[in-house]
Amino acid sequence: MRIVLILNAFFLLAATTAAQRQREPSLIPMPSTVQLGTGQLPIDQSFSAAVTGVQDTTLERGVERFVAELSEQTGMLLRHKPGGPTSPTLLIHADHDREPVQKLGEDESYELAITDSGAKLNAPTALGVLHGLQTFLQLVETTPAGFAVPAVTIKDQPRFAWRGLLIDVARHFIPLDVLKRNVDGMAAVKMNVLHLHLSDDQGFRVESKRFPKLHEMGSDGWYYTQVEIRDLVAYAHDRGVRVIPEFDTPGHSRSWFVGYPELASGPGPYKIDPEGPDSVTDPIQEGTYKFLDKFVDEMGKLFPDAYFHIGGDEVDGKHWDANSTIQAFIHSHGMKNNQDLQAYFNQRLQKILTKHRKLMIGWDEILHPGLPKTIVIQSWRGQESLATAAKQGYSGLLSFGYYLDLMWPASRHYAVDPMSGAAASLDPEEKSRIIGGEACMWTEWVTPEILDSRIWPRTAAIAERLWSPQEVTDVASMYTRLGELDWRLELLGLTQRSGKFRMLRRMAGTGDISALRTLADTAEPVKDYTRFENVKGPWDFRAPLNHMIDAVSPESDAARHFRDQVQAYVQSGCKDQVVEAQIRTMLTAWRDNAMKVRSLLQQSFLLLEVAPLSEDLSALGAAGLEALDYLDKSEPSSESWRNQQLTLIERSKTPRANLLLMVVAPVEQLIEASRGQTQK
Amino acid sequence: MRIVLILNAFFLLAATTAAQRQREPSLIPMPSTVQLGTGQLPIDQSFSAAVTGVQDTTLERGVERFVAELSEQTGMLLRHKPGGPTSPTLLIHADHDREPVQKLGEDESYELAITDSGAKLNAPTALGVLHGLQTFLQLVETTPAGFAVPAVTIKDQPRFAWRGLLIDVARHFIPLDVLKRNVDGMAAVKMNVLHLHLSDDQGFRVESKRFPKLHEMGSDGWYYTQVEIRDLVAYAHDRGVRVIPEFDTPGHSRSWFVGYPELASGPGPYKIDPEGPDSVTDPIQEGTYKFLDKFVDEMGKLFPDAYFHIGGDEVDGKHWDANSTIQAFIHSHGMKNNQDLQAYFNQRLQKILTKHRKLMIGWDEILHPGLPKTIVIQSWRGQESLATAAKQGYSGLLSFGYYLDLMWPASRHYAVDPMSGAAASLDPEEKSRIIGGEACMWTEWVTPEILDSRIWPRTAAIAERLWSPQEVTDVASMYTRLGELDWRLELLGLTQRSGKFRMLRRMAGTGDISALRTLADTAEPVKDYTRFENVKGPWDFRAPLNHMIDAVSPESDAARHFRDQVQAYVQSGCKDQVVEAQIRTMLTAWRDNAMKVRSLLQQSFLLLEVAPLSEDLSALGAAGLEALDYLDKSEPSSESWRNQQLTLIERSKTPRANLLLMVVAPVEQLIEASRGQTQK
Repeated sequence: MRIVLILNAFFLLAATTAAQRQREPSLIPMPSTVQLGTGQLPIDQSFSAAVTGVQDTTLERGVERFVAELSEQTGMLLRHKPGGPTSPTLLIHADHDREPVQKLGEDESYELAITDSGAKLNAPTALGVLHGLQTFLQLVETTPAGFAVPAVTIKDQPRFAWRGLLIDVARHFIPLDVLKRNVDGMAAVKMNVLHLHLSDDQGFRVESKRFPKLHEMGSDGWYYTQVEIRDLVAYAHDRGVRVIPEFDTPGHSRSWFVGYPELASGPGPYKIDPEGPDSVTDPIQEGTYKFLDKFVDEMGKLFPDAYFHIGGDEVDGKHWDANSTIQAFIHSHGMKNNQDLQAYFNQRLQKILTKHRKLMIGWDEILHPGLPKTIVIQSWRGQESLATAAKQGYSGLLSFGYYLDLMWPASRHYAVDPMSGAAASLDPEEKSRIIGGEACMWTEWVTPEILDSRIWPRTAAIAERLWSPQEVTDVASMYTRLGELDWRLELLGLTQRSGKFRMLRRMAGTGDISALRTLADTAEPVKDYTRFENVKGPWDFRAPLNHMIDAVSPESDAARHFRDQVQAYVQSGCKDQVVEAQIRTMLTAWRDNAMKVRSLLQQSFLLLEVAPLSEDLSALGAAGLEALDYLDKSEPSSESWRNQQLTLIERSKTPRANLLLMVVAPVEQLIEASRGQTQK
Repeated sequence: MRIVLILNAFFLLAATTAAQRQREPSLIPMPSTVQLGTGQLPIDQSFSAAVTGVQDTTLERGVERFVAELSEQTGMLLRHKPGGPTSPTLLIHADHDREPVQKLGEDESYELAITDSGAKLNAPTALGVLHGLQTFLQLVETTPAGFAVPAVTIKDQPRFAWRGLLIDVARHFIPLDVLKRNVDGMAAVKMNVLHLHLSDDQGFRVESKRFPKLHEMGSDGWYYTQVEIRDLVAYAHDRGVRVIPEFDTPGHSRSWFVGYPELASGPGPYKIDPEGPDSVTDPIQEGTYKFLDKFVDEMGKLFPDAYFHIGGDEVDGKHWDANSTIQAFIHSHGMKNNQDLQAYFNQRLQKILTKHRKLMIGWDEILHPGLPKTIVIQSWRGQESLATAAKQGYSGLLSFGYYLDLMWPASRHYAVDPMSGAAASLDPEEKSRIIGGEACMWTEWVTPEILDSRIWPRTAAIAERLWSPQEVTDVASMYTRLGELDWRLELLGLTQRSGKFRMLRRMAGTGDISALRTLADTAEPVKDYTRFENVKGPWDFRAPLNHMIDAVSPESDAARHFRDQVQAYVQSGCKDQVVEAQIRTMLTAWRDNAMKVRSLLQQSFLLLEVAPLSEDLSALGAAGLEALDYLDKSEPSSESWRNQQLTLIERSKTPRANLLLMVVAPVEQLIEASRGQTQK
């Protein structure tokens, strides 16, 4: 297989030395084939781009944006003039224009050829050009001779046609500008579906002219106007991103009932309140379907994409159980249970969608043989669920393993492949029904200022999984490239790094947060659903999210780096003095940090809760240094010393303030190493 | 004088201990009177504001914005509902609405009374309320018990009616969103005039429908549309800021001549190019005045403010000298020289302004007895120039001493008072003609990404000089409050701190810039006009501004802090061990930094030039530590050692790459101290 051979050669080359690796292009997602040439193309103020081939307004705007971004990246004032010059630095050609509404499976491939005298970008469609321009931007390097892109030939196309990011704008409203900058981030890593979870128990977030009580009574006042939605859809389309609306039903829909209680299975009244009564949609009233018909008509026009997401997840049977009319309906219609009733509801809803020329997409629970094969199953349950659907002829996409709210490291998401597990044994035709995946950003614990840090840069690892060849799995390479992408995303206006600083300053009530950062940089939020489990009483979605857990990154770079260093040191038989010196620098900084930050923590109601973590971090620093002292002296540590340290280790492993100190395990490793047995 | 007495009491209180000072409200500009009460008013999610008194839409929007900013500052989701509740946390009352076009001298006073149970803000006008809300935001603190504002009574009004910021959008175009965030910054420190320098030799930046060749041919394609200008004027008005347009004439006006060469004194043709021919407006053609009549008509309507700035500075006589028709006109009209001709031009222009109901403002050079007393003189020359004008009955405002492009420290701007020097000896009536001042941001070396760092936070020191009582002059207090304001401005979206990081990352071509920051934090740009003097050949306004000088702050906080510490240490007779330890920490970091950053500097064409500075910083760190070693041992340093160090000191004082290492003088002080004589 040619693609793989070239790729492997590339990785072998990249792996030779760290210095050489730095000179390799830092592309994410990794293209299908990358052939490095000789030399580089300088990028200076004479840079220009020109477009030939098909005329397409989104292409022209894309090139304008590309030049503006290149200007940001280099700090040179560059401006694209429509058309461009006859001898441009970069010659762009697309054979065909794009679909007016971007289609699933539209050709996204491109070829980029760069020599030391010029660059050419060719693609069958304008959509492919957009992706190629992003690759070009990632190739720009600061070199001793100036800005440049390396000579390289790239042929590239996506592995999966559906590469999505779900943003839940219901639990916390996310303003338009924040969505837009995230679309910029998606485009940078070649993602092509923004899935908006627009309604849930906590809020209905789109203006409905047909049913204005949906947004007026079903929200706290924060919702998108229809003008804003059209603006967003156009913005996303310009960047090669489809926008899929999700209106979750029949479950997760209390916000509908505040204004329209007649849609609910229970009596109401309803309000947007964590303590208020819960319910699900009533599937036996004809009024429900009349409502949905008008609703789909309105929203289907507002969101032009072919797909319409109906949610369908986690329908709590208790509301239907409690309604005797509904139970009578189940029996009189020969249904066995609530699941059958939901299938009935979905079949009727599906007919409404078809009437309005929409294709249905929904979560695992909607899978039912009564629905046509055109529907798409989005799986939060896993590859087995996808495989089951594929065998029945249904298309599916994977979200299991891509839940960003679980605070997993990028490497863990990266390891999840839609074609692994049960899906691996499907036949080719069945496999072709697995059309991609979606990262999911549920926002129970996410406000607009937190959002970027929860999505980026980890989502880029998922983007690579969905775009690049299946064989691209080198975790170290992924992290290197993720690190480079990270600051480029901040150039685009994303705040996944800078947002932390403003939150820390707020907590500290002062601008000098250097010591507080040292502490924050070693901690991660608790994983999975632990934060929910630690809530006393009902979860209040209105509670302020301004604590340390909200500020720290899902994945601590400092801790990962420290872990790698300790690993290397122990593997060297505790002999590598260069690495040891680096470890000592980190441990010393931690040891000395508690003293620096102590008074700050006491002055702030938001920081008091992290004081124990701060003290333990210092103690861990001291313990690690003592372990290294033993190792330096080649003197085995005493068991009593080790036992004392292990008390600290055990305590430090306990989450406090919903935070985990991520440097504990490597310090434990040093303490273990100080026994002396591992030394030669 | 009651005001001063209370103020003095406040400062005495503040000066007692550092711990107490931290609890003083960090207000900038300092209000006229501040009386601290007992206790504090908690700010939690129940916070609400309500408005009584006059109905004014800009007031209602102002309160909405205030609540949104409070939400940003605290991380709590807060939302103002029009009108507000009956028992609000903050009760706002204004007697009168604002002028539809904000007037010079409109009442800006307010009174803010906060107790532990509630807050009241009263003002004669809605404009005063806007200022009072900014004071409230600055009062919010993070305390051990929660967010709170201290119990306090504040009565406040400005010392000067004109508190401006000039932004030169001609030399480098500044996009609308960047202007808007700077208006937010101005409002935060109660400045009330945004003066836009809209045209100069390098560009004409406003769309003219009457004379479209002005912006089409007189710019590089970057200009404000009229829609954008209206948007900006409305945005600024909402925030209590007037927008004054400046169209510089008859000098600084090459950009007019590209499209309209008939306006020039020389033959042309003209283009926007540093190498192209230069010229000034032809004042003897009737066509010039016909053009200006239509131009002022159009622009006067676009910018509703009563004042219209005509520039008038630095008219280079050589162009008029070279035109024999103009010289003949001078003689035939009984004029003595080019100055008389400019006065003639200004008188005719003034009549045009009067026709279009505009008042003239211009630089020092327009002062001439032939002009009416309604004009305003803006002085780049100094207080003597203002005093001369005031004695003749003319109003004036000071910009001398407030030029932000000269890269002075905040303290130097802070020391400049419009009423000092020659102005101090004016009689009260003459003094009343000095109506304020303007900070000036000339952008020859400033692009949009650099702008914020050149304006903020230093401009807040100038804002305080123009708002607060003349007696408010404590530099240490100013710097403390400036530091607190700094990160609050970043919350508003300004980038004066974060912009540096993106520029450093670009230079480094990588995300890890910690060592590079250590270097950058000790350097400042060369001062005054040294950067111009160092340009080889003609200054090219299109050259990329992406060097270290463009990234570093005008004033190094690290160096100021180090200088203060060394000062304190030497004053303690080199005995204070706590301070010494802090000095050692800084010196050690610098000593060890060159090694960390060396390979990074070599890899980037933008960083090569700072390698010598990096090496010297390390050497200075080492020298300072050695000096401390001598002092610790109470052993006088040898003359030969000192001579060796002084070679380093002399070299380090030399600007390189247009940068100054700001830690040189304190290290020299330590070396001097190591002689031993200063010890007891």
